[in-house]
Amino acid sequence: MKIIVDGMGGDKGYKEVVKGCVDATKQLDVGIVIVGQEEKIKEELSKHEYSQNRIEILNAEEVIFNDEEPALAIRRKKNSSIVVGLKALSENRGDGFVSAGSTGALLAGGLFIVKRIEGIERAAIATVYPTLKGVSLLIDAGANVDCKPEYLLQFAIMGSIYCEKVLGKISPKVGLVNIGTEEGKGNSLVKEAYKLIKESNLNFIGNIEARDIPNGVADVIVSDGFAGNIILKLTEGMAMSIFSRLKEEINKSYKSKIGALMLKHQLKSFVKLMDYREYGGAPLLGLKKPVVKAHGSSDSLAITNAIKQVKNFIDNGVINLIEEDINKITRI
Amino acid sequence: MKIIVDGMGGDKGYKEVVKGCVDATKQLDVGIVIVGQEEKIKEELSKHEYSQNRIEILNAEEVIFNDEEPALAIRRKKNSSIVVGLKALSENRGDGFVSAGSTGALLAGGLFIVKRIEGIERAAIATVYPTLKGVSLLIDAGANVDCKPEYLLQFAIMGSIYCEKVLGKISPKVGLVNIGTEEGKGNSLVKEAYKLIKESNLNFIGNIEARDIPNGVADVIVSDGFAGNIILKLTEGMAMSIFSRLKEEINKSYKSKIGALMLKHQLKSFVKLMDYREYGGAPLLGLKKPVVKAHGSSDSLAITNAIKQVKNFIDNGVINLIEEDINKITRI
Repeated sequence: MKIIVDGMGGDKGYKEVVKGCVDATKQLDVGIVIVGQEEKIKEELSKHEYSQNRIEILNAEEVIFNDEEPALAIRRKKNSSIVVGLKALSENRGDGFVSAGSTGALLAGGLFIVKRIEGIERAAIATVYPTLKGVSLLIDAGANVDCKPEYLLQFAIMGSIYCEKVLGKISPKVGLVNIGTEEGKGNSLVKEAYKLIKESNLNFIGNIEARDIPNGVADVIVSDGFAGNIILKLTEGMAMSIFSRLKEEINKSYKSKIGALMLKHQLKSFVKLMDYREYGGAPLLGLKKPVVKAHGSSDSLAITNAIKQVKNFIDNGVINLIEEDINKITRI
Repeated sequence: MKIIVDGMGGDKGYKEVVKGCVDATKQLDVGIVIVGQEEKIKEELSKHEYSQNRIEILNAEEVIFNDEEPALAIRRKKNSSIVVGLKALSENRGDGFVSAGSTGALLAGGLFIVKRIEGIERAAIATVYPTLKGVSLLIDAGANVDCKPEYLLQFAIMGSIYCEKVLGKISPKVGLVNIGTEEGKGNSLVKEAYKLIKESNLNFIGNIEARDIPNGVADVIVSDGFAGNIILKLTEGMAMSIFSRLKEEINKSYKSKIGALMLKHQLKSFVKLMDYREYGGAPLLGLKKPVVKAHGSSDSLAITNAIKQVKNFIDNGVINLIEEDINKITRI
């Protein structure tokens, strides 16, 4: 198996990506193709010990930045690491692609170059969401801001397969994000989506309220990309704001500082629970090939975990399973 | 000034409401009308010391429960505390109304009995949202799940007036909840709403991301009721889930328990920051009279604070100001 990695994506630069790739080859039975500025990557690789037959470089001189208009950047920067990497993926020169670069560009490139699975109306971003019970999968986390009910059904199907095969949950509980749990609640989109998902053979537990998402009420959290992105970002914001408030309170007195020191170990493992780096990346579901978006602030650990995730994605034949299930629905 | 209070609303029952009303008369220069089952309320009142000329009872035998379909309950239970209270309000037998009962019934009753201000397309629920910088006002928190851009403009106007007059913020910063900060981001609703709010004379700071809401990036957080309700409930859910995780971690060792004891004071004032009871209730904006929804789990302190809030709402002439500003817009 060969995994293509965007060497230039991410806020922390190519050095962290290179280290993440080297570490991945030590932990996993994979070959890696790093796409990006060859000279820089070669020089960085030379600082590490690794088996040379396991890592190759694919040159791509351009870089797409986060502030560029995604579709435009994909069309104009033909020699960017994202475009070159996705092309290599679509030409079967690798089995999956990982990038910590611009989410929009990765999605636009995925749609233009890798293309959607036949029958899939929209590709979606699924993110692993840490909960009190472990993890859930949130889909869509922001790819589609205006949705139709049918899209939400497809998100539910794709999310369910990924959650079962990659996150290892048997018959994952699928919940539809709504403002109340009763059937008939919500806006016109979720009311219609409810009916469609209810008729499917998924393990649908009905509407879920945002209050219960952090408790792990559902394994697959289905939402349009607008509300989904709000859920994802508010979760991050709340965690950060609560930590910073707690810190402020602790720093108010000498005694409380000592108390916090005694709690150091507990506070650390608590913070770890909320750490995105532990959870790999976000798969783009609905494309013909496995593509995973690693967090923009990925360090080498996050990159290694994202590579592990795309390996699971490939190993478990998620794409084939999505194709089969979508075929069943569209044939009815 | 006379404030009408729903004696039967709230999960904690009429005893807490009665105590909250008695306490309010001791702290504020207001008269109170408690609406509900007269015998019960009279008996409960007899347990307290209070000036008898400051509290009166308006009998209403029926109670609307949270699981009832709101519009149906309002039509059928003509003698419920909500219907009787709102009727008294619309007949000027009081200056404002507070209820900890069913939000849906209060809203439906408000629309049917008190009615919307002329020119207002939809009434909205505004909630005080605790942030790192103090408080913001979130509007709409769940009254309108399917919105048009014009509604969001009106929410921004009403929220801005309330925030300035009742929360005391000068020229409050108005932010539109979106999935990115750049103009042109988001779904079709917020794209259009952005243009409308930008053209208004509000202190519009543009799009805000959910991540920044807990930091207090905006004083008025404008959203449709679907996303707004998700924001409100996810905030509650995250706070609860983080506390319960922290507790779990602390209880893992003897040392950490002692550490937590040393932090007791800090943890308490931290929890207080997140305590809904401190922030009064949620005004229903767009109605012809001041109506405030107190939290369903309100104890007497929360009821007293909600009464304080409706008094500020009345004192500051918020309804007149909304009428004036909406008139300006609709006349253009």
